[in-house]
Amino acid sequence: MSERPKTPARAAVWSCDPVAPQTFASLDSAPFPEFSPGTVWLTGAGPGAPGLLTLLAYHALTTADVVVHDSLVGDGIMALVPGATRRIHAGKRGGKPSAKQADITDTLIAHAGTGARVLRLKGGDPFMFGRGGEEAGALKAAGIPFRIVPGVSSGLGGLAYAGLPATHRDINQAVTFLTGHDLSGTLPTAIDWPAVARGSPVIVMYMAAKHLSAIAQNLLGAGRPADDPVAVIASATLPEQELMTLTLAEAVTPRALPTPAIIVVGAAVTMTDRLAWFDAARSHGLMG
Amino acid sequence: MSERPKTPARAAVWSCDPVAPQTFASLDSAPFPEFSPGTVWLTGAGPGAPGLLTLLAYHALTTADVVVHDSLVGDGIMALVPGATRRIHAGKRGGKPSAKQADITDTLIAHAGTGARVLRLKGGDPFMFGRGGEEAGALKAAGIPFRIVPGVSSGLGGLAYAGLPATHRDINQAVTFLTGHDLSGTLPTAIDWPAVARGSPVIVMYMAAKHLSAIAQNLLGAGRPADDPVAVIASATLPEQELMTLTLAEAVTPRALPTPAIIVVGAAVTMTDRLAWFDAARSHGLMG
Repeated sequence: MSERPKTPARAAVWSCDPVAPQTFASLDSAPFPEFSPGTVWLTGAGPGAPGLLTLLAYHALTTADVVVHDSLVGDGIMALVPGATRRIHAGKRGGKPSAKQADITDTLIAHAGTGARVLRLKGGDPFMFGRGGEEAGALKAAGIPFRIVPGVSSGLGGLAYAGLPATHRDINQAVTFLTGHDLSGTLPTAIDWPAVARGSPVIVMYMAAKHLSAIAQNLLGAGRPADDPVAVIASATLPEQELMTLTLAEAVTPRALPTPAIIVVGAAVTMTDRLAWFDAARSHGLMG
Repeated sequence: MSERPKTPARAAVWSCDPVAPQTFASLDSAPFPEFSPGTVWLTGAGPGAPGLLTLLAYHALTTADVVVHDSLVGDGIMALVPGATRRIHAGKRGGKPSAKQADITDTLIAHAGTGARVLRLKGGDPFMFGRGGEEAGALKAAGIPFRIVPGVSSGLGGLAYAGLPATHRDINQAVTFLTGHDLSGTLPTAIDWPAVARGSPVIVMYMAAKHLSAIAQNLLGAGRPADDPVAVIASATLPEQELMTLTLAEAVTPRALPTPAIIVVGAAVTMTDRLAWFDAARSHGLMG
């Protein structure tokens, strides 16, 4: 089993013994699963802060021959990709039509077909509004072996950094995650707003900034109270993080919102007043 | 800023320059946020596989003076805790009454009060059915500084390892996560089953094995079809992982189910037939 890539352009790996067991260095000899040539790892990069990569994602990122990454994977994470690794930018972005999905899967298949270790790096988690299921299906159809590396979903990572529990004993036993736009960029048509409004005391919305006014109207029409609190968490986990709170009634008024954003509706939002802990201004240059 | 603990029992940290940038060793000098004495980090350990720890969680785990861990944090992860670190087992477990929550927060506050770096390590994500909001509130009330380190929620990590997308373009624009038991161990009373059944094509349930029969009856009564597929993913991401599929009608019959389990209802379950990729039997001793 080879943990290290063999391309000659890579710098030599130095080792020194003994390595204290509690260091990151000890992980260089840890038994990670083999990233085999000719395979694709569909991998979640988490919400943004490099420290929220998983160990497995970092292993993949340092072992891959090719990294195919989304716009939502930021500079802090891409800076960890070794210089000799080929990077391919798959330029999809929330809120815009994504006509290029077929091109992306073609790219994954083509590179894996040449025997490369292909890391498909996506913001958040690949199976949570990440189209990972579609990409995995295309790889399966093409006979390319793959692995799914789950990540910290941006909804959960963003909530943690805003001090906003997705679930809380005093508030909810269910939470719904939904997308605020469909593949053509319009308001999703398959969401049953009355059911969501009634079934989920807390609603976490991805890519919902553009249609927040319409969504707020739908939720009010379905009986959510005018003073239901709303949080907009933009650039979550990064030094640019912004937290804005308003009411559902106020959210009906169209306004420019910072993006990318996670938007939360429900009583849990009021907890940010007490539980917000992240000092974005002091996080510059830090891993989290 | 001190990245390493100062307790004398710890082994010396060796370093050697230059370290190749693409190694884990290079992270030993990365700018992680400081784990200050007298603070508590409420940290998600992910679904089970050690490779699904975040870099920030691993940093915390190797820097803490005290680790207060749940039953759901497995041996593979606890093996990464340095030998000299104090471990405290907070013995809560899904499905059982959790009378000891106050004791746990008292423990966190007491240790932080002595100037220790306290790592509260929880399965999954601390804000997703993890009671992290309650613990953060207690710390805030006691004046103890804290940080929330999000983790890969077991629902999402388990789904990834079962090849089961939480969302898929052809299936759903919303997904609901709910708990299958409340704090007293009975079926949750605050869940609006008809609304959840109608609003969420895919439903992901935590700690629902015990009450699956009653839950299935509720969902059928709310109009979900008898042949709605159900997946039980037990010991997700670990070598013991088991995947069992049945129909909602079949789930009404009480049966012993392996635990801990994530249970998923909805059309996405059928995707496991094509997209399951994890070979549990071959994962023994591996990080993921």
